[in-house]
Amino acid sequence: MLRAIELAALGPEHDPNPRVGCVILAPDGTVLAEGFHRGAGTPHAEAAALADLRARGHSARGATAVVTLEPCRHTGRTGACSVALLAAGIVRVVYAVDDPGAASGGGGEALRGAGIDVVPGLEADRASALIADWLGTIRSEPEPSGVLRVILKTAATLDGRIAATDGSSQWITGRQARAHAHAVRAHTDALVVGTGTVLADNPSLTARPWGVESPHQPLRVVVGHRPIPVGAAVDRGDGRLVRVRSHDPQQVLDELLSRGVRHVVVEGGPTLATAFLRAGIVNEIHAYLAPLLLGSGRSVVDDLGTTTLGDAHRWHTRSIERLGDDVLVVATAD
Amino acid sequence: MLRAIELAALGPEHDPNPRVGCVILAPDGTVLAEGFHRGAGTPHAEAAALADLRARGHSARGATAVVTLEPCRHTGRTGACSVALLAAGIVRVVYAVDDPGAASGGGGEALRGAGIDVVPGLEADRASALIADWLGTIRSEPEPSGVLRVILKTAATLDGRIAATDGSSQWITGRQARAHAHAVRAHTDALVVGTGTVLADNPSLTARPWGVESPHQPLRVVVGHRPIPVGAAVDRGDGRLVRVRSHDPQQVLDELLSRGVRHVVVEGGPTLATAFLRAGIVNEIHAYLAPLLLGSGRSVVDDLGTTTLGDAHRWHTRSIERLGDDVLVVATAD
Repeated sequence: MLRAIELAALGPEHDPNPRVGCVILAPDGTVLAEGFHRGAGTPHAEAAALADLRARGHSARGATAVVTLEPCRHTGRTGACSVALLAAGIVRVVYAVDDPGAASGGGGEALRGAGIDVVPGLEADRASALIADWLGTIRSEPEPSGVLRVILKTAATLDGRIAATDGSSQWITGRQARAHAHAVRAHTDALVVGTGTVLADNPSLTARPWGVESPHQPLRVVVGHRPIPVGAAVDRGDGRLVRVRSHDPQQVLDELLSRGVRHVVVEGGPTLATAFLRAGIVNEIHAYLAPLLLGSGRSVVDDLGTTTLGDAHRWHTRSIERLGDDVLVVATAD
Repeated sequence: MLRAIELAALGPEHDPNPRVGCVILAPDGTVLAEGFHRGAGTPHAEAAALADLRARGHSARGATAVVTLEPCRHTGRTGACSVALLAAGIVRVVYAVDDPGAASGGGGEALRGAGIDVVPGLEADRASALIADWLGTIRSEPEPSGVLRVILKTAATLDGRIAATDGSSQWITGRQARAHAHAVRAHTDALVVGTGTVLADNPSLTARPWGVESPHQPLRVVVGHRPIPVGAAVDRGDGRLVRVRSHDPQQVLDELLSRGVRHVVVEGGPTLATAFLRAGIVNEIHAYLAPLLLGSGRSVVDDLGTTTLGDAHRWHTRSIERLGDDVLVVATAD
């Protein structure tokens, strides 16, 4: 941790973002990689350390991340660090200072929910001293209430297809991209699909980063009027299956807000994705892209009502990440 | 250069790739960024230095790159370094050792052709000593002959559309992605489009990285039977316009090989892209993706004859790069 604090101090002192350092350790305690935050708009310390790790040809499987600040849960200009650590295969996170931010905080709890061993508070005084100004600012921010963050997840070929003409779609993306999507599931309060997806793919909608179910499981929300078949994988008899008999995305969100959901991932097919996009209530797109070309088959979105390029739904790229042969593009509306 | 050699020495001594270091200097000589090659499968030294530059929030516009080995012209597991340097806005490249590789060499000449000030040979003895084994191996490789490398360039939305339903397509990608594509043009021997593209967009098919025509201009090759309108931008009366009155990609390549072309970029629309893909003669795809969703409009490729996912054209991701809000995925067939 002292090395992580040393790294943090290399970052810019006057910056809207806090100075953070991160060291990644092998199970035997060897230092595998290091990183620090170089200021707003550049990768967070955890992402920098993971990039350093990859550049050195090491794997994060079974490793420990030591960070001066609780890994963030939100996605700002970069991907959420807690998801990145989980997806990389980190099993233990040791951090110094709790993140008091309303949007960014909660990463430690989310990681614990996903089955990661989380140790907070190590050298908290020293690490806090480095970011005293930032902590003062962030603590005075008002807490948002009743706000639901909607992520739309898609997985498609380079030509935007989610299935071949015969309907085959498993798997377009590879193991690492799927593990990443499971890490995102382990962080979210609810997963939403349409009845069409339940009938076509019979998904279990559980969070299984690296194959094992995480302790925290999201609500499984099925939208639409068609009945769910008896014995469907989504119906586990645990009271966490939610049916919303409507096609109106706003009604889905109202139902979820009434249940205290704050963070939702829409994983349904093109019909559901198109409805949410047309309703203008998607905050973030997670587009997983595989280096395949199909030339035909179902497209990732249906008719959005655009006829000319100026009407296209324009997003802002927040981060790109290579996951094996696939690419994850995270884009936000604002 | 001595610092670049020092950096190079940090790389792995026993590796199929040579040890290379790179320093990027501001016009006033200040060090802006550093990088070195960490071994096969990781970014080349130039790419590492450019990544370091971006992480520090600096720009490469007007900067000088100092490299221990001539920047590569080919694209292996990573993008071609000479293209990356040019696209980043580097104006001067100082390097130590000529790359004798048949595929990788020629980067210096290509950069000079693109209008970059290239200074070879600085501290060549010291830098050579560091990679003596690799130089021995690479010099004994046979020279390939009559081989043509075909790059297919596409620019599409996240849902694989290259135009809206009314045909509007300018511009799907942003300034940085277009500048990168122009840097690739400045490196190639020939650009191929179909008559459809000439009639629809009236492109000049010149290489203009950063707005200025580079000294080296590729042959402008127009494929198809329809006549080119009088006064078309592609017809500059310089003898570098080539007509191929055929729709057979192999005939196009035969014509180009007979003219000594070794490296070609196919920039035509979906019809031409599909013909080249179906013929199986594309070596590399440069897929520029913009964070837009259209939901309708022309797709980036037409029917490839695939009906099930197992028949999809599967590529291998070599590199991903963020260019402003856009993403470039470079994928190869092998």
